[in-house]
Amino acid sequence: MGRVVCDVTMSVDGFIAGEGQSREEPLGRGGEQLHRWQFEGTLENASEREAIVDAGAFIMGRHMFGPQPGEYPEAWSGWWGENPPYHAPVFVLTHHARDPLVMQGGTVFHFVEQGIHEALLRATDAAGDRNVAIAGGASTINQFLAQSLIDELRLHIAPITLGAGERLFVNMPPLSLHPVSSRTTDLVTHVVYHKVAQSK
Amino acid sequence: MGRVVCDVTMSVDGFIAGEGQSREEPLGRGGEQLHRWQFEGTLENASEREAIVDAGAFIMGRHMFGPQPGEYPEAWSGWWGENPPYHAPVFVLTHHARDPLVMQGGTVFHFVEQGIHEALLRATDAAGDRNVAIAGGASTINQFLAQSLIDELRLHIAPITLGAGERLFVNMPPLSLHPVSSRTTDLVTHVVYHKVAQSK
Repeated sequence: MGRVVCDVTMSVDGFIAGEGQSREEPLGRGGEQLHRWQFEGTLENASEREAIVDAGAFIMGRHMFGPQPGEYPEAWSGWWGENPPYHAPVFVLTHHARDPLVMQGGTVFHFVEQGIHEALLRATDAAGDRNVAIAGGASTINQFLAQSLIDELRLHIAPITLGAGERLFVNMPPLSLHPVSSRTTDLVTHVVYHKVAQSK
Repeated sequence: MGRVVCDVTMSVDGFIAGEGQSREEPLGRGGEQLHRWQFEGTLENASEREAIVDAGAFIMGRHMFGPQPGEYPEAWSGWWGENPPYHAPVFVLTHHARDPLVMQGGTVFHFVEQGIHEALLRATDAAGDRNVAIAGGASTINQFLAQSLIDELRLHIAPITLGAGERLFVNMPPLSLHPVSSRTTDLVTHVVYHKVAQSK
């Protein structure tokens, strides 16, 4: 059985998206700067980039899937075009039932109304021996962290402050992690944490 | 001439002290856990620990020097006993005049009423060829960061969340830093940032 992993890029002041997220600016004001390491540092961050989509199933929140509050228009099929980078089942947390959405390249979006535990069960089953990746956004990752459901957190710390936006590490009891490794490149510091048995 | 450096230990959720700082609990609730790496990991973090007090002069805020709001009682001589670890001039930002306080081992506390720029001038002068270290707390470090006065920020990220307390990286314009290096030990990840010429 694989592990539950999570890659997330955070500003040094704790935000994973800026204020004012919208269809035009899905990462909010300044939020795209967080991901400069992925687009401008492709070679020197190759292994970390590849790891992000190396999973047998993914889980994401509905705000990561699409910008609309409430029901999705049937036309909306995510931000990623016809062939999303996941190439695996993606379980989207939602309050609105929708039939699975089959994309090119093996990505299938499944819409789960029963919360994170049900999504994790289904994703674990779908992933088989491979990892389940918690893809985001902040609210979804924070829910999984709060319940100590993430085995490996790969925190990519961008060397900028945003000042406002969506915070990681909120709405949870005190958390204690085990730091495993770190690596710095020009645009980011990659820090890997493992779950510890007992938070304190 | 030396550089302006700053060592600060931060929780992964951005706090450098917990809530409820007091004379009994100067780092607030849970705040002592931030510094486990210094006390339980002395050998494996030896170089980072030594660097903290390797400076020709120090600057600190009045809340770091003592817990009292308002004037210091003349009896208060800091948290560190007769022989503080600084062994150099320490410039304490304050609104209340006080004569310099000569401690054992070369530490002399000077009380500066004219703000951070005056403190930096005096500390730079006193340090000669050595570095000036911004010793804390959050408010003082944030003021220096906001004005891009720190050449090297050594961020020690403790693998815990505190949930509340004194935040680093607040009350400043958007900041952009240059990540230089990182190193992980059992209780901490050390990340070094340099100032970049132009913040964006």
